[in-house]
Amino acid sequence: MANKRNIIVGQSGGPTAVINSSLAGVYKTAKERGFHKVYGMLHGVQGLLDEQYVDLSTQIHSDMDIELLKRTPSAFLGSCRYKLPEIHENPEVYEKIFSILDKLDIEAFIYIGGNDSMDTIKKLSDYAVVKGLPQKFLGVPKTIDNDLAMTDHTPGFGSAAKYIAASTKEIIRDALGMSYKKVNITVLEIMGRNAGWLTGATALAKTEECEGPDLIYLPEVTFDLDQFRAKVKALLEVKQNIVIAVSEGIKVADGRYVCELASNSDYVDAFGHKQLQGTALYLANLLSSELGCKARAVEFSILQRSASHMASRTDIDEAFMVGGAAVKAVDEGDTGKMVIITRKSEDPYVSTADIYDIHRIANIEHTVPRIWVNQEGDYVTEEFIDYVRPLIQGDYAPFIVNGLPQHLVLDLNRK
Amino acid sequence: MANKRNIIVGQSGGPTAVINSSLAGVYKTAKERGFHKVYGMLHGVQGLLDEQYVDLSTQIHSDMDIELLKRTPSAFLGSCRYKLPEIHENPEVYEKIFSILDKLDIEAFIYIGGNDSMDTIKKLSDYAVVKGLPQKFLGVPKTIDNDLAMTDHTPGFGSAAKYIAASTKEIIRDALGMSYKKVNITVLEIMGRNAGWLTGATALAKTEECEGPDLIYLPEVTFDLDQFRAKVKALLEVKQNIVIAVSEGIKVADGRYVCELASNSDYVDAFGHKQLQGTALYLANLLSSELGCKARAVEFSILQRSASHMASRTDIDEAFMVGGAAVKAVDEGDTGKMVIITRKSEDPYVSTADIYDIHRIANIEHTVPRIWVNQEGDYVTEEFIDYVRPLIQGDYAPFIVNGLPQHLVLDLNRK
Repeated sequence: MANKRNIIVGQSGGPTAVINSSLAGVYKTAKERGFHKVYGMLHGVQGLLDEQYVDLSTQIHSDMDIELLKRTPSAFLGSCRYKLPEIHENPEVYEKIFSILDKLDIEAFIYIGGNDSMDTIKKLSDYAVVKGLPQKFLGVPKTIDNDLAMTDHTPGFGSAAKYIAASTKEIIRDALGMSYKKVNITVLEIMGRNAGWLTGATALAKTEECEGPDLIYLPEVTFDLDQFRAKVKALLEVKQNIVIAVSEGIKVADGRYVCELASNSDYVDAFGHKQLQGTALYLANLLSSELGCKARAVEFSILQRSASHMASRTDIDEAFMVGGAAVKAVDEGDTGKMVIITRKSEDPYVSTADIYDIHRIANIEHTVPRIWVNQEGDYVTEEFIDYVRPLIQGDYAPFIVNGLPQHLVLDLNRK
Repeated sequence: MANKRNIIVGQSGGPTAVINSSLAGVYKTAKERGFHKVYGMLHGVQGLLDEQYVDLSTQIHSDMDIELLKRTPSAFLGSCRYKLPEIHENPEVYEKIFSILDKLDIEAFIYIGGNDSMDTIKKLSDYAVVKGLPQKFLGVPKTIDNDLAMTDHTPGFGSAAKYIAASTKEIIRDALGMSYKKVNITVLEIMGRNAGWLTGATALAKTEECEGPDLIYLPEVTFDLDQFRAKVKALLEVKQNIVIAVSEGIKVADGRYVCELASNSDYVDAFGHKQLQGTALYLANLLSSELGCKARAVEFSILQRSASHMASRTDIDEAFMVGGAAVKAVDEGDTGKMVIITRKSEDPYVSTADIYDIHRIANIEHTVPRIWVNQEGDYVTEEFIDYVRPLIQGDYAPFIVNGLPQHLVLDLNRK
């Protein structure tokens, strides 16, 4: 076997609580398998094009650093939202990337990301194959949205689902404590423009001591305002405290997002911008106005993707596993593939890492099957819940310093 | 000593992550000191007036239940926002309350709450003294806002501060990971209409591996939009990623809340309501519009008061301590008092529970001293940070069932 050369890894797209666990898996496995240097691109391909990279051995000095990295949210290397042009449109970009890879003696290129990032892997591996270049390209799945095809689920989803379910339980407790002889409606807004996986995860708040949300609306099902009103009114006949979970991406029949309905009044803000109010805020205002009751909106906002203090152990472990599996795959000669997670067993939950042709994954959006949403379109089924539950199990206690979780942070002055 | 009779305890006002730890402290100490029955009012005095109460021995069966209660957010008994009328205005309300207390053989009445709740203790104890009635009344401090007088701090504040500081660290990581060659401004909105304790707590995110927020604006200092703009522009000369923490209660010189400035355009929403947009959203829109950059707003919303999964051990322990101290005080004959926390030592941090005349506490708002905010009014001082840091230390691991924190929940069918 020839001497192994170097490997480069990047992170791309919106971060998750466990994207750095995949980075840790790449680094540790690359070192174990005898790669010479492990480079990290700073801010993905966009940074690489500016020759921004770091030798990861200057950042990770010990197993303790590996453990810290696994508990650090957001992209340690920095992320980007950069879509590669088509090869025929702009071959210069490809030439530049490959000249940098040549300069760094790169044998394998690993990219941790979502759909756009898998498109990058597809294009780069296609280019290499067409040009007869030696570098291997492999994708590592990552996204809280869980919308990648072929993989049972994506790393990042389980931790976001756990954070959302735990926070939903806490908010339901809060709501119950505050309502006495009066109606109290809470509308929760959850990320996922086209895929309702995270919004559906609020159903996990339904536990022996918590009723969970009353209604759950996913973007996969057309949202009907009249039906919604009728449902809430019917619920108010039997209870005074109602919690509703909605995806930011729910749309009405004419294709408009619910948050766009708020703009009926042609409202422009003080700066002349047409503002889209939040979906939850719109629905809370609507209920409050029509029913004359208290209704509040809560957006989980970016906390749902960055709350590593509430990450799932299953998720962190799987993120690490898929990072390692990508290194193994390129080391064994694979290219143009993505690591996927296969669910081998439900009870006990067992998953493995496999690889799959990137061409059958990139740019395909995996949404919640209609059959996992109830007939009325306002709750997920038991099958949905059974699918998510194993993914939120366990935790890694954060390393607490002075009362707060400690993170591993890039330091370019470090040697 | 005569046979001890019964004790009743209630919770009032906005909940915290540790208000139930105080309830646990009341219950356990009352049992230890030989009180016969421990009743809980459901939804505070408002529920009591409807004769809504529960024998707590039907709810708490074991030390395990006590531990679970300490880890349960929101008001276990239910809360209320009910202000007692002045005695001369409506003596019937007082007569009704005391007739219920007599019926239940109540010797002592303990109320866990904030400023309004201490007003309730003051009025009830005054009434009892004037009428020569035997019941004792004691207040237990509670509020995330930390705005009660005479006590070093209030239970609930430390946990909210810990959650806010930890989430701020995570959001700063998220922001840094996402910004490459472009400006990225994040504005965090934090609770506290008149007191900036929680907003100032974002400064604790400044740790060895995190710069913390760049600017912090408390409601105690008049907010100057021009100065704010100038400050942000100056920061943009040296860095591209800026995180700003603002209190929901910041006001400009003419006395208007910043969130009211957004209503210049006389915007009414689709339902005809004049809406107050959020403070952070207003400032993010303003910066985005004037500087042509990306600016996002994040509201911590009610998660900051209900996130028991991130509670401070110091806070949970002190909440338990002040609950117990209230029982001890009434048992020793005190009435018309509130338990206060006294800081005995900084290093190691040691605090004790003492009691203080409720008349010198009720209805006084304790805000951040001007000297703990810097000259420019845009950051807190080291003294502020040193004051808060001990209060966020330690944690109680949540009891996790099926991947989620378990809570103790009121069940009126329980025996």
